[in-house]
Amino acid sequence: MPIEQQRGDIPGSWRPKLHEIIFEADTPAGKFFDIALIVFILLSTLCVMLDSVSEIRAAYSAVLNALEWFFTLLFTVEYGLRLSCVQRPWRYAVSFYGIVDLLSILPTYVSLFIAGSHYLLVIRILRILRIFRVLKLVTYVGEAHLLTRALVASRRKIGVFLFAVVTLVMILGSLMYMIEGEESGFTSIPRSIYWAIVTLTTVGYGDIAPRTGLGQFLAAFVMILGYAIIAVPTGIVTVEMGNVFRQPLNTRVCPVCAAEGHDDNAVYCKLCGGQL
Amino acid sequence: MPIEQQRGDIPGSWRPKLHEIIFEADTPAGKFFDIALIVFILLSTLCVMLDSVSEIRAAYSAVLNALEWFFTLLFTVEYGLRLSCVQRPWRYAVSFYGIVDLLSILPTYVSLFIAGSHYLLVIRILRILRIFRVLKLVTYVGEAHLLTRALVASRRKIGVFLFAVVTLVMILGSLMYMIEGEESGFTSIPRSIYWAIVTLTTVGYGDIAPRTGLGQFLAAFVMILGYAIIAVPTGIVTVEMGNVFRQPLNTRVCPVCAAEGHDDNAVYCKLCGGQL
Amino acid sequence: MPIEQQRGDIPGSWRPKLHEIIFEADTPAGKFFDIALIVFILLSTLCVMLDSVSEIRAAYSAVLNALEWFFTLLFTVEYGLRLSCVQRPWRYAVSFYGIVDLLSILPTYVSLFIAGSHYLLVIRILRILRIFRVLKLVTYVGEAHLLTRALVASRRKIGVFLFAVVTLVMILGSLMYMIEGEESGFTSIPRSIYWAIVTLTTVGYGDIAPRTGLGQFLAAFVMILGYAIIAVPTGIVTVEMGNVFRQPLNTRVCPVCAAEGHDDNAVYCKLCGGQL
Amino acid sequence: MPIEQQRGDIPGSWRPKLHEIIFEADTPAGKFFDIALIVFILLSTLCVMLDSVSEIRAAYSAVLNALEWFFTLLFTVEYGLRLSCVQRPWRYAVSFYGIVDLLSILPTYVSLFIAGSHYLLVIRILRILRIFRVLKLVTYVGEAHLLTRALVASRRKIGVFLFAVVTLVMILGSLMYMIEGEESGFTSIPRSIYWAIVTLTTVGYGDIAPRTGLGQFLAAFVMILGYAIIAVPTGIVTVEMGNVFRQPLNTRVCPVCAAEGHDDNAVYCKLCGGQL
Repeated sequence: MPIEQQRGDIPGSWRPKLHEIIFEADTPAGKFFDIALIVFILLSTLCVMLDSVSEIRAAYSAVLNALEWFFTLLFTVEYGLRLSCVQRPWRYAVSFYGIVDLLSILPTYVSLFIAGSHYLLVIRILRILRIFRVLKLVTYVGEAHLLTRALVASRRKIGVFLFAVVTLVMILGSLMYMIEGEESGFTSIPRSIYWAIVTLTTVGYGDIAPRTGLGQFLAAFVMILGYAIIAVPTGIVTVEMGNVFRQPLNTRVCPVCAAEGHDDNAVYCKLCGGQL
Repeated sequence: MPIEQQRGDIPGSWRPKLHEIIFEADTPAGKFFDIALIVFILLSTLCVMLDSVSEIRAAYSAVLNALEWFFTLLFTVEYGLRLSCVQRPWRYAVSFYGIVDLLSILPTYVSLFIAGSHYLLVIRILRILRIFRVLKLVTYVGEAHLLTRALVASRRKIGVFLFAVVTLVMILGSLMYMIEGEESGFTSIPRSIYWAIVTLTTVGYGDIAPRTGLGQFLAAFVMILGYAIIAVPTGIVTVEMGNVFRQPLNTRVCPVCAAEGHDDNAVYCKLCGGQL
Repeated sequence: MPIEQQRGDIPGSWRPKLHEIIFEADTPAGKFFDIALIVFILLSTLCVMLDSVSEIRAAYSAVLNALEWFFTLLFTVEYGLRLSCVQRPWRYAVSFYGIVDLLSILPTYVSLFIAGSHYLLVIRILRILRIFRVLKLVTYVGEAHLLTRALVASRRKIGVFLFAVVTLVMILGSLMYMIEGEESGFTSIPRSIYWAIVTLTTVGYGDIAPRTGLGQFLAAFVMILGYAIIAVPTGIVTVEMGNVFRQPLNTRVCPVCAAEGHDDNAVYCKLCGGQL
Repeated sequence: MPIEQQRGDIPGSWRPKLHEIIFEADTPAGKFFDIALIVFILLSTLCVMLDSVSEIRAAYSAVLNALEWFFTLLFTVEYGLRLSCVQRPWRYAVSFYGIVDLLSILPTYVSLFIAGSHYLLVIRILRILRIFRVLKLVTYVGEAHLLTRALVASRRKIGVFLFAVVTLVMILGSLMYMIEGEESGFTSIPRSIYWAIVTLTTVGYGDIAPRTGLGQFLAAFVMILGYAIIAVPTGIVTVEMGNVFRQPLNTRVCPVCAAEGHDDNAVYCKLCGGQL
């Protein structure tokens, strides 16, 4: 089936037009729809945040509640329309964007049964991603694609690194638990592991800190370790990015001497002088 | 119009001389002017800082106030002279340096109406930048230029990264708000997002810290995440710098067409086929 | 002696079969054994951790104690079997894995004499390493090998860096001790060195922080220093990784002498002069 | 004057022998001297540290004081001998090592007049550097040399970066001072600048932290900024190290076709097949 049909362009049907407006941004209507969508998404996310500030909730509870339901119903209708105007509703529903769209309306309904769950609505911010794609911010999408490739390429090395870190913090945490004990706040091994992570990652809250000399000595060791091994993920990602960002070499072959590796602007073979 | 005239060198006029002194540093007078300016800038910035220390303000309020007005009037006169001796005052006024010059005198006058605004005078430190340029610290300017180019080259990737970080902290912050709640200091989603940023960037004030086990588990996840993804901006900038700093490989010039940029092992010019 | 014998495959003996089950993962029995082992290791480590949480210990002390002994006896039997079915028990006993296996059962017995030492059992987590090897997670092992090579290659430079850091924190710590003194928490030089490490590594607990102006000035210097010199280990590891990860440029083989590693634009074999 | 004389080898003089023992490590006597020196340096540094721990000082004040004078007199004699057995005492006295040697004995004498100054004796640890050089730890010295070269090569870029950071924290600090004010701990601009450095470098003590919403918003901005721009020094140093560590290319030229860039193990020219 040709791509046009896939995208729902059946002559004389209402769905192609709707599809064009909702999924594309080439027509004025489509562009307007996307702009409006961005505005609504940002506004609704803002509402959720404001609703969490006790002073504001106390004062404008009713307004915020109304707005939340307004946005939710709006997005619900939009979700229905998206489902209705795609050829394969199910494929859309299970796609990343389809799931995000669903997740950004569900919490409001769930909050009828589970109080507070509506704060999950901030996930709506993820919908912005689609807009990027739709608004044809090609360069940004391209850059994001490059970054993703670099991270995917280094996922195994990062995995090995994370396993090493987890093993390390478990052993260090247990040692500190035995050295420091309750009175310093190292009340259990899990909590000591939490401390080890806080320290190794150089976050250093200070809510738990060693008091004994030996404990501080081990802590100092953990810090210098964490200070040094951050070089590992950095090195991995940097090298992979270097490989990913490097543009492919020109693959032209000289017809005379079959030499390769000519620059993009090469007119003659640099080895035999033959015209390329 | 030749460059000389642009820079205001009209024979028999007072402006070229003034321009030479204020904008150039080639003549003894010009150099002296710039040195004096640096000293005044540093002194005036120091005054603003000292004025903010309550003990000192209590003791020397009058002196500091007098000095501040002295420096402001001085810089105001200088600003007027700069305006008067350039061919295109407006173009200077709206240039980066022109704006900085203006901003470093305005606050004092504003402080007559809005108390405390004169602390903005520290922006004067930015004026030092011009001096660098004028004193022909070429190498440093060149290095700064290289760095800027590298950062500009990686601006899009950094932008994508920052968008991802912002989305991440919004979702993580909301989750923590629901998990920890008021009593741990996560009093609202914005505040929880603030905590997420404090943690992800490994700053870790400790003014807000999770208390519940689940909260600490999520926090540990955020820390390791922040510890790992710092590799992303580092990798981006490092790779771009590698590209920007890399000097051309080969400086041979083709005797036939004078083209440059040949590979080390090129035998014939890749552009005209002439023997190198 | 052929490799088969080394691995204990003496026809008609019970040991080859046992060896196959315990040390290999090619047969269903061997795979099942390894899976079971992973589960037991994780469970036993979990027990140790739970046992350290006072509430849980209060409630389930007996159960946890029983489980701990169960796992320990189980691993003891396994250790004995491993010793019995290898050709060279001693070589296994002194190998890395042999020592880890021993260390992950000893603490329980030691805890009969020294209370609390059984928390060292978390070292059992290291046993997972073997499983990785056995389960033929080749790619991961390969990646880990690459990382190790990169770190080994940069060990000397890292050593120099660490020596510089240690010298630095000793001198900075002593300075701060003289500047700040007792009342700010800098109660001794070792403790001040601990502070210097906390600050230089950007961990920043805040349990000790300078109060005097001069102290804060020096602290600011230490922070910016630490912020800048983290570039050193990062740079070292990144460069070494770049060297280690870089795959051979060209895979052509010389038809005459079968040499490899020719440049992309090589026309003749650089070793025998034969046309490639 | 030949090198031998410079190093003091005048036949029949006592100084060459002394010079050999003190400055060289090739003879058994020289090696023993250096080993002993390391031990004494470490012991004396340890004494200074222990002396700063109030409990220990209270108990062993007399012993530590005696030891300190013992070591100081010992090093004083050594310093005198070094001066006496070099051809150019003055050149040694003003050399880096000469100054370090002097600084590691002076504080004890100064402490007779200025109490507490003897803690500066930790500078003795720097003397270890010479031992490295003398004990011919060539590889380490080489590595250190490489690192130094890389840092020297990037000093200008780092300088530009530091200037940018200083300007940034001055402006950010003043802004926070105006936003937060006294009650949050931002009692003066210098103190606010201190906070800005603590935050930008991701140290994050938490001794000063914003309370107002606007302040926390700006703080979040500063953190993300600091989290991102750490990529700058890292990138600079990494790239410079990449250049410095890279071994020089082979510079042989093919006698037949004058091609360059042959590998170290190349026997024939890879371009024309001519014998190199």
